[in-house]
Amino acid sequence: MSAASATVATRILGLDPGLRITGFGLIDTLGSQLRYVASGCIRTRDGELPGRLKTLLDGVREVIETYRPDVVAVEKVFVNVNPQSTLLLGQARGAVICGAVSCDLAVHEYTALQVKQSVVGYGKAAKEQVQHMVQRLLALDASPSPDAADALACAICHAHGSRGLGALPGLGTRRRAGRMLA
Amino acid sequence: MSAASATVATRILGLDPGLRITGFGLIDTLGSQLRYVASGCIRTRDGELPGRLKTLLDGVREVIETYRPDVVAVEKVFVNVNPQSTLLLGQARGAVICGAVSCDLAVHEYTALQVKQSVVGYGKAAKEQVQHMVQRLLALDASPSPDAADALACAICHAHGSRGLGALPGLGTRRRAGRMLA
Repeated sequence: MSAASATVATRILGLDPGLRITGFGLIDTLGSQLRYVASGCIRTRDGELPGRLKTLLDGVREVIETYRPDVVAVEKVFVNVNPQSTLLLGQARGAVICGAVSCDLAVHEYTALQVKQSVVGYGKAAKEQVQHMVQRLLALDASPSPDAADALACAICHAHGSRGLGALPGLGTRRRAGRMLA
Repeated sequence: MSAASATVATRILGLDPGLRITGFGLIDTLGSQLRYVASGCIRTRDGELPGRLKTLLDGVREVIETYRPDVVAVEKVFVNVNPQSTLLLGQARGAVICGAVSCDLAVHEYTALQVKQSVVGYGKAAKEQVQHMVQRLLALDASPSPDAADALACAICHAHGSRGLGALPGLGTRRRAGRMLA
């Protein structure tokens, strides 16, 4: 991993996992500066679960091969009132994280509360506020799609937490910003 | 994939996913004959989730590279009363399935009910009955460990369902034995 010094930019891949749509967003950080790199969605079509998980795994790997991030930040998913939905979402999240760890990247996890707190300054902010602040912080011409915005927000959350620590920690290191154990 | 003809054996990898212990079991089928190949467990140590998922992903891939199965059968997991446990189990299952699909193997899913029905003839059979029947059906000298037994039972369930169909179907094909959509 690159050291987050004053001269070397660190590229962060943010991921917002979902079985139907997984958002991704990449930013470069250089000291306190944030620079937008790319964002988008990996979509899976209706069908059998193993095939959909493969689409997510391959999609994340393709994003990593294309943009070569140094580190990955993944949003923790909510447990749903419907246990079957929770199970499906868990499997999707497992596939998304596998995409990252199979490329030997360290994965940091943040709750939606932490992400909103970091980006909007308020843990219960509405989706539109997150989109608005992501657009402002990254100086984008237009508002990103909700899924891409959540992924970019997760990357920004990691950048805010890392700043001033000198280097981004590897797997197994606790984060100042409150990296979560699942 | 190999055709399940009278002369070519099909090797089935059965998997019983869990975050702490994932059981695996391999059998060869030749017509109505079943032959034990290998079985065991992939264990993850306490620690952060991404690292544990990587252990499962790499473990399944290693089993596949070592024993070269033709097809994979995975037990469907129960949703737990605790939503957080369901989410963790879902993520483990996602990683286990990713291990198989990343090796381009077709993955078939069976519920515990289907597996028990197929191996013991009774969907609500006790764990010990499953272990006993797996030992008998595969002519093993000793009873396999519970996790390995469940994985072997899942492989046997797939073998029983496939017999007489001529060839094992690929992804996207419905199974006579009731392959489940998650």
